[in-house]
Amino acid sequence: MKINRNYLDLKESYLFAVIADKVDDYRKQNPQKEIIRLGIGDVTLPLVPAVIEAMHKAVSEMGNADTFKGYGEYQGYDFLRQAVCDYYARKDISLDMGEVFISDGAKSDIGNILDIFDTDNTVIIPDPVYPVYVDTNIMAGRKIIFIDGNEKNGFLPLPDEKTEGDIVYICSPNNPTGAVYTKDQLRMWVDWALERQAVILFDSAYEVFIRDPDLPTSIYQVPGARKCAIEFCSLSKTAGFTGVRCGYTVIPDKLVRDGIPLNKLWYRRQSTKFNGVPYIVQRGAEAVFTDTGLKQISEQIGYYLENARIMADALTGLGVWFTGGKNSPYIWLKCPNGMSSWEFFDFLLNNCGVVGTPGEGFGKNGEGFFRLTAFGNRGNVTEAMERIRKAL
Amino acid sequence: MKINRNYLDLKESYLFAVIADKVDDYRKQNPQKEIIRLGIGDVTLPLVPAVIEAMHKAVSEMGNADTFKGYGEYQGYDFLRQAVCDYYARKDISLDMGEVFISDGAKSDIGNILDIFDTDNTVIIPDPVYPVYVDTNIMAGRKIIFIDGNEKNGFLPLPDEKTEGDIVYICSPNNPTGAVYTKDQLRMWVDWALERQAVILFDSAYEVFIRDPDLPTSIYQVPGARKCAIEFCSLSKTAGFTGVRCGYTVIPDKLVRDGIPLNKLWYRRQSTKFNGVPYIVQRGAEAVFTDTGLKQISEQIGYYLENARIMADALTGLGVWFTGGKNSPYIWLKCPNGMSSWEFFDFLLNNCGVVGTPGEGFGKNGEGFFRLTAFGNRGNVTEAMERIRKAL
Repeated sequence: MKINRNYLDLKESYLFAVIADKVDDYRKQNPQKEIIRLGIGDVTLPLVPAVIEAMHKAVSEMGNADTFKGYGEYQGYDFLRQAVCDYYARKDISLDMGEVFISDGAKSDIGNILDIFDTDNTVIIPDPVYPVYVDTNIMAGRKIIFIDGNEKNGFLPLPDEKTEGDIVYICSPNNPTGAVYTKDQLRMWVDWALERQAVILFDSAYEVFIRDPDLPTSIYQVPGARKCAIEFCSLSKTAGFTGVRCGYTVIPDKLVRDGIPLNKLWYRRQSTKFNGVPYIVQRGAEAVFTDTGLKQISEQIGYYLENARIMADALTGLGVWFTGGKNSPYIWLKCPNGMSSWEFFDFLLNNCGVVGTPGEGFGKNGEGFFRLTAFGNRGNVTEAMERIRKAL
Repeated sequence: MKINRNYLDLKESYLFAVIADKVDDYRKQNPQKEIIRLGIGDVTLPLVPAVIEAMHKAVSEMGNADTFKGYGEYQGYDFLRQAVCDYYARKDISLDMGEVFISDGAKSDIGNILDIFDTDNTVIIPDPVYPVYVDTNIMAGRKIIFIDGNEKNGFLPLPDEKTEGDIVYICSPNNPTGAVYTKDQLRMWVDWALERQAVILFDSAYEVFIRDPDLPTSIYQVPGARKCAIEFCSLSKTAGFTGVRCGYTVIPDKLVRDGIPLNKLWYRRQSTKFNGVPYIVQRGAEAVFTDTGLKQISEQIGYYLENARIMADALTGLGVWFTGGKNSPYIWLKCPNGMSSWEFFDFLLNNCGVVGTPGEGFGKNGEGFFRLTAFGNRGNVTEAMERIRKAL
């Protein structure tokens, strides 16, 4: 019996544990100070009324023999896949229901999708990055090439003639940097992938935060993407579903590698190792995509975006360089006065009682940068920026 | 870009598609005949009131900012893991909360657990069997050795001095055969695994159907199992959760291979590729394990078991050999008069209007056998057995 020894190559992340320890210490030494958390990556607003109503109805259906639902479809109920197709139609993207897979969140599918690819593929991952992309590939023993996000490219790395690999991860709007690729920039990745028969894993979990009509909210707004890209999205940030667990993955029929449609491979994977998303959750997700639901979530997203704007304006006023802050719930700032990520963490905590996330935790290129999130409440955000303004 | 070509070694299962086609044909030719389905593997009774009440309460909590829940614990909420520990305590098994992982169903975890094992392990799988065990290992390219279940061993294969492998699947009560291992029989597997440092993947999804107090409902009732067995259970059949999606996996702290506790590896896998089970679902699951919930599900299980008893009595009266029919929702019968699985399928359909599942669909040793399930309603079960009695 041998374990999967690739797991031993995983780095333990102590990022959030170290943050928790430092905050505890501060709290003990400053029991009277109110700490404001601008580091949380979780939503704080409750589910919208349309979702709550739909889920109550679904719960009641499950308690009645006439309306009870047993096993659902592996790929998701038609009503929800149709709702996702309708949502894409609003973006002028025409999808077939068979191209949509309902998931229990983007994280699961982004990890599990690797099952359908040979371990002998080279993976390109931007640095800094959401750690799941890296860890899932280490677990499978795949070769990883990092490409650099930095101040010069606005943390939006692009391929050049030397970029070679089989699978590339793109997250836009990006976690942790909040940067958003333009259509022209995405087109460079799509052309690159088509030329090499590579596959783009496009993480669009934050697409709903894009308010600029010129920015792409789906990679399928770029010509050719249906032949090279899989898109993962989630209702976690879209509709406060972090504790509800629902997302969707799109694999176009035209995406074929080694002569095999990847859609068919993924269906085989899901029907073998997954049994679908709860009926109650799917009914809640369906409600998100109704006119009423979309209006209600739009107000929530507007609230978070206004938080981001307040933070961005304050940083601009202070002359701090950053990405994000609009079309994204994240702000990725360059630590002032040449401070390292952790030095700035300590500075903010000790001088302002504000907690954020050191960029170094997202990869080596994150050193010297810092992430703030817009998921807090308005009063705290305003107060935090006022404290930072005074301290800097 | 290479796909995972192991997928091309998977056999497409046409079992249920062929059944559907045959039933359609019959229906067209006999539009007046009422068809009774004794092949369904899905529950039919609705969720019990305790679960419905808990889920309504949880939905309401999610709609209120003060009680809203975002990301939960990767391993499951403490309240549910404690409830599972308390359930095991009723079986005289003491578990620590850290040994319990809440899942979205046994199928997911039984498939995904293989991530933590090297692909270079040999897997032992009984035949006939739940197809997921086979397919998930083919996907990873693992070597599979089948061991024979048959009339002679009552479809409860046991290891002998020649049995060699690293991982073995045991499902008891068994799907599809309904056979249940005794404690002494399980002890043979545990001793075998301890001697070889193999790992037993124990699927106890049907444990709640066991009413005979002498039969084990958990492998941890066998001494030594904590050092060699992972147990997977599900609320799908226990509490009608097939469309709700919740189960649990137990990995004892003492289960160590290659010097690494498997519990820690699985935690790493789940925290990287999974984001937990919906809060609403976990509250529903918690309600299953209350005194009220257990009483309510016991009545449902009693209903299904009475269906099984009616079928078993009829078959006994007809002199048909079978396993299961008690302590299980399944009956696995030897096709009468030397018929093959599909011949008996056609016989039942054409002479009785009854649909079951040909045993051949579960492996080569299933040829000549046939599965009936007890999840239908009482009137249909009684009527079906009456028709079969007349036809045989």
